[in-house]
Amino acid sequence: MSSRPLVTMTTDFGYMDAYVASMKGVLLSINREIEIIDICHEIRPQDVFHGAFVLHTGYSFFPDGTIHLGVVDPGVGGNRRAILVQTDRYYFIGPDNGLFSYILKHEKIRSIRALENKSYFREDISSTFHGRDIFAPVAGHLTLDIPLNELGPEIDNPRILDIPEPKVDEDMLIAHVLCIDRFGNLITNVTRSFWNNQVGNRRFFIYCRMRIEKINRSYNESQPKDILAIFNSSDYLEISSNMGNAARELGLKPGSEIEIELR
Amino acid sequence: MSSRPLVTMTTDFGYMDAYVASMKGVLLSINREIEIIDICHEIRPQDVFHGAFVLHTGYSFFPDGTIHLGVVDPGVGGNRRAILVQTDRYYFIGPDNGLFSYILKHEKIRSIRALENKSYFREDISSTFHGRDIFAPVAGHLTLDIPLNELGPEIDNPRILDIPEPKVDEDMLIAHVLCIDRFGNLITNVTRSFWNNQVGNRRFFIYCRMRIEKINRSYNESQPKDILAIFNSSDYLEISSNMGNAARELGLKPGSEIEIELR
Amino acid sequence: MSSRPLVTMTTDFGYMDAYVASMKGVLLSINREIEIIDICHEIRPQDVFHGAFVLHTGYSFFPDGTIHLGVVDPGVGGNRRAILVQTDRYYFIGPDNGLFSYILKHEKIRSIRALENKSYFREDISSTFHGRDIFAPVAGHLTLDIPLNELGPEIDNPRILDIPEPKVDEDMLIAHVLCIDRFGNLITNVTRSFWNNQVGNRRFFIYCRMRIEKINRSYNESQPKDILAIFNSSDYLEISSNMGNAARELGLKPGSEIEIELR
Repeated sequence: MSSRPLVTMTTDFGYMDAYVASMKGVLLSINREIEIIDICHEIRPQDVFHGAFVLHTGYSFFPDGTIHLGVVDPGVGGNRRAILVQTDRYYFIGPDNGLFSYILKHEKIRSIRALENKSYFREDISSTFHGRDIFAPVAGHLTLDIPLNELGPEIDNPRILDIPEPKVDEDMLIAHVLCIDRFGNLITNVTRSFWNNQVGNRRFFIYCRMRIEKINRSYNESQPKDILAIFNSSDYLEISSNMGNAARELGLKPGSEIEIELR
Repeated sequence: MSSRPLVTMTTDFGYMDAYVASMKGVLLSINREIEIIDICHEIRPQDVFHGAFVLHTGYSFFPDGTIHLGVVDPGVGGNRRAILVQTDRYYFIGPDNGLFSYILKHEKIRSIRALENKSYFREDISSTFHGRDIFAPVAGHLTLDIPLNELGPEIDNPRILDIPEPKVDEDMLIAHVLCIDRFGNLITNVTRSFWNNQVGNRRFFIYCRMRIEKINRSYNESQPKDILAIFNSSDYLEISSNMGNAARELGLKPGSEIEIELR
Repeated sequence: MSSRPLVTMTTDFGYMDAYVASMKGVLLSINREIEIIDICHEIRPQDVFHGAFVLHTGYSFFPDGTIHLGVVDPGVGGNRRAILVQTDRYYFIGPDNGLFSYILKHEKIRSIRALENKSYFREDISSTFHGRDIFAPVAGHLTLDIPLNELGPEIDNPRILDIPEPKVDEDMLIAHVLCIDRFGNLITNVTRSFWNNQVGNRRFFIYCRMRIEKINRSYNESQPKDILAIFNSSDYLEISSNMGNAARELGLKPGSEIEIELR
């Protein structure tokens, strides 16, 4: 290809150490032309679902051909596999522990391979940092257009996490908080299309300290510090506090349930 | 132009989510050659003045032609305008809410436009994330050298924040803390030139727990943990603690007043 | 050279301010083709040893010819020198305060120079921010292939910090915690080769709340929340908590001692 290869990174390595930079150094040592973009390094330590969700909200905005590296890897050095997932548009490289659950559920999958060919790994492989020793080297080599089947055999049973689905009874919808963002917005598992199908034009009450009876179109339709509901930029139902921090004000966290009464 | 277009980003999106990366993906999808540099993503949530100040201290070191994207946008989805400010050297793109106040006050302005041409936006525009749906796409297209007047009409009434000015009485100068940096340095609104004009060679006492009677030339002219005054690298008067954290030790924060007695 | 010059950055400037971006702007204003990679900006404020250690764990993964900029600089504006260290593979630029101690001890040094030629500095040099005014400009010019001897005279007495070495008595090994990473792993000063030489096949007890009697090969050989010992990806002995945070659970910090009884 003529333009520089793009590699994104999503990890729980944070910003205090040289882990992220070590991976970048490995990538650039294999192919100096790689452009590296950080998606997120503040995934909660070892929280694979958190990584899966954040990656899910970010990967699709990148150009076709982008390689997405994901490393949230509590099982490093054990017997979980290392995988490459090829979709219609992208490559995903990381541990086979559910980190790519959303991709495996939502994207058109072309192939999934177990990364087994050590000639594309670093020479010495630690048992604690496969991001540097396996995933980054494979991504680096992939930008050099090696044939995929060199990397390892196809598999058909990748690990996929149970993503909690909203539960609906006749007059009750139970949503789960999937993620809390920097602003304290509570992102639930109710998508806009799920809402349209299940709630449609029915009247509803979202119970969250105050009783919310409408979906906002923008944050500042409400008064400052009002708790409100809105479909966010990824089309998930979000509980927010205008100019405030809903998570802090409501004391909710990932996994919390939110009841929505339907009339 | 021959070299790669430069786009900087200043936001309150933090590092926990995929918001920043979504904007980068949008930029690179429009023009794969863009080089993106982060100025700051840790602006206090929805604190437009904080964003304006940090952007002010960083933008001027970039090469001519750089596009500066700024997104601190509590009014997103409401009726605040989206604008492009063209100065002698740079472009600034973001919400018309005062984020570019320092630029509008200090720089030679060539034009200010309301961004209204939807053909340069993303197709679907959310009401919660114009950074991704409007500002990044416009910046991306701008690197492709579209004529500015395609983007929208000129305006002459951009929003400008009141930037607190130091107050001077015959023998009293009241400074305000504008910003606290990572080191706990208290950056005040007294610039070096204001000081030279108003204080000159007069004797002075800065009241900050201890009475400061001189301006340091370097931090380590003082003893460790001493509170000191110095003109910082942006030429603002700064109250600092050598090897310490002045904000924590003095209990001051943005907006706090500092009294300076002039003799 | 044909590929873009690489510059890494290791600083204590954090992510709240425009300090890092100012340096990047200066670099790109001198040479638009520079590729900048962050190693770490979360060095504890003014903690030179912390900076030295993190830089040490990251620099060696980068391609030959990389310029490593390091700025943890409590003595800025005083009389500490500014230096350039040239090794077999890299350049290091920063204050002469011990930040490059590991490099000076472990790498093959070609030359060390005091940076004195002001024609490669910014025009106005602040007394508080040599990262922007001296180190970044010199790094920028270095990518333009100026002769090294233009920058300043060679010196032979760079500042090197005392790096605490593990103490060994007949039957007791005292390790020191050098660094705590994002996961709360306690990284000690015992390297794998030191261990092999000094402990070899002897039985041992590491005293850390529980008595650890073996070295793990991977984190998840232990039960969740078990305290364990492992050689990390930089070959240092590390005390870790599987899926937990050893530093928090054990109440240890940089400088803490860990006793290892040898049988």
